[in-house]
Amino acid sequence: MTSSAPTVALVGATGAAGSTVLRVLEDRRFPLRELRTLASPRSVGSTVTFRGEELPVAVVEASRLHGCDIVFFAAGSATSKEYAPLVAAGGGVAVDKSSYFRMDPAVPLVVPEVNGERVREHRGIIANPNCVAIPLAVALAPLHRAFGLRHLTVATYQAASGAGRNLVAELAVQEQDDAAGRVPSNDFYPHVLHRNVIPGGWRMYGDDTEEEVKVTQEVRRLLELPELGVGITTVRVPVAVAHAAAVWVELETDADPATARRILESAPGVRVLDDPATQAYPTPREVAGSDEVHIGRIRRDPSREHGLALFVVADNLRKGAATNAVQVAELVLEGRR
Amino acid sequence: MTSSAPTVALVGATGAAGSTVLRVLEDRRFPLRELRTLASPRSVGSTVTFRGEELPVAVVEASRLHGCDIVFFAAGSATSKEYAPLVAAGGGVAVDKSSYFRMDPAVPLVVPEVNGERVREHRGIIANPNCVAIPLAVALAPLHRAFGLRHLTVATYQAASGAGRNLVAELAVQEQDDAAGRVPSNDFYPHVLHRNVIPGGWRMYGDDTEEEVKVTQEVRRLLELPELGVGITTVRVPVAVAHAAAVWVELETDADPATARRILESAPGVRVLDDPATQAYPTPREVAGSDEVHIGRIRRDPSREHGLALFVVADNLRKGAATNAVQVAELVLEGRR
Repeated sequence: MTSSAPTVALVGATGAAGSTVLRVLEDRRFPLRELRTLASPRSVGSTVTFRGEELPVAVVEASRLHGCDIVFFAAGSATSKEYAPLVAAGGGVAVDKSSYFRMDPAVPLVVPEVNGERVREHRGIIANPNCVAIPLAVALAPLHRAFGLRHLTVATYQAASGAGRNLVAELAVQEQDDAAGRVPSNDFYPHVLHRNVIPGGWRMYGDDTEEEVKVTQEVRRLLELPELGVGITTVRVPVAVAHAAAVWVELETDADPATARRILESAPGVRVLDDPATQAYPTPREVAGSDEVHIGRIRRDPSREHGLALFVVADNLRKGAATNAVQVAELVLEGRR
Repeated sequence: MTSSAPTVALVGATGAAGSTVLRVLEDRRFPLRELRTLASPRSVGSTVTFRGEELPVAVVEASRLHGCDIVFFAAGSATSKEYAPLVAAGGGVAVDKSSYFRMDPAVPLVVPEVNGERVREHRGIIANPNCVAIPLAVALAPLHRAFGLRHLTVATYQAASGAGRNLVAELAVQEQDDAAGRVPSNDFYPHVLHRNVIPGGWRMYGDDTEEEVKVTQEVRRLLELPELGVGITTVRVPVAVAHAAAVWVELETDADPATARRILESAPGVRVLDDPATQAYPTPREVAGSDEVHIGRIRRDPSREHGLALFVVADNLRKGAATNAVQVAELVLEGRR
């Protein structure tokens, strides 16, 4: 590939994450020679809008990935498993949003603000972390660099879109039902989400949700702290877009909240909004649509030595998925110039 | 007072907590010679329904508390401060839901399942804890007795009704607006709650919310662990009724989850619902209306020595307020027989 614009494919173009990749490519004026919008056979015949044009969605198959410089995978693990190695073998780079390659030591797991230099280690596949792990890593990496991270506790408040469009649609119907005084029902998710919070809905690994396992493993890998103690409980909340997390950290050395705030304010990809006396703190409804990780409620946790508490909110479809993937692709292109 | 039925007053009869006291008095067939339903001047002219009858609501004033054996206070701290001592001076017992007397060493702070024997120490006023502190104490007391409680971390998911009827009404309007595609507004609460989670809205004490301070202080007092380390973040969620909490505990001795589950299953006021593989865990929508503290997701926190994690849900208006108050009144009456 020369320095001319790349040929790009997007696999999963019609999903919640994939359609957000289209918006982020537009917003960031990503250079493109060609964009191929692909999806599973279910989506055949549909179109997506990109830069004002209707693009047809084709079925993902090997021939359509041929000649691509970058392929974004925003479909399931099975699709990534099958097609990402083909992209790599053909000399392109697969930027994968699925969980399939995240813990593969031969595949870098990258958040540009945290470990962007790892992009250079790729062998044709780069994994994007989970939508909770990304904002946590962005928020914690500057604190880890400054003070050393010793322990992490996280309770999540995760939006419906993290489970895909089906749950967003189901939540919208439940909202209509509740507003009209009808008893809502649930089909896709195991409990009614509207007017509720649900500490499950993920596959279980023993007593832990798959999400709890993923976030733990990926935060450890991103921060290069393989032994980091992590306590985590993942909970779904009736929010369409943007995940929040109540976070407690124990640090190696003392961090007063004012210093932590200053460090986070100058950290890449972070926006600090922290004046609770004037009700200034991030909330999902206000953070949705943003590419940054928003942090507030930064304060001491006096119950732990060198303890801090914070509240972290990020758009799970943008920084938690699409924005991170596009940033990774930008790093790949920079490296090739 | 003889063993005949008591004369009872309810101050704040028209509020979210007060109207729930009426329902709980009905449900528990509380013995009554007379029930006086009182409220602030704003509610004059309104009525409440009790045991199928419409009762007029009178303005709270000293003369109307005269001769009462039990007075439930479900109004604000100012009302309790003014009138509860009058009840005590008149030989009655004030069962107070406000926060005004909770940390007064001369006033017992009681959750019947946790420290019911403290009722006997009253000098005419008994305080009820905060609606998060009550279920936490019910859930933690059995674990503390069995294993010793060393540290507590809590992230809350608190229902709108905890902030009173105004927020419930505001949330319902926002829900209508969102369902109709209108942009919702907020007036009572500092941010739009529907489709959102809000880590604030309480008065601040330095960097902590008033709620975080209250829960910490009251759990320590209830469990008689004045030095207990507590990390807590309180968050409002778009749920009408029932608070949830993600909880981590560190214990003095090892507690395997199966043993903890057995202990909690036989604990008073507790219902264990814990089989996440079949999506069995408590959620606010399903727990609302119940008098018990529901616990699920009981598992090891491997990141801490003798660590356990759990998820606790209770109806904030019932066990978190009205049910606890009525149970306390029942203990008072038992003691007088």
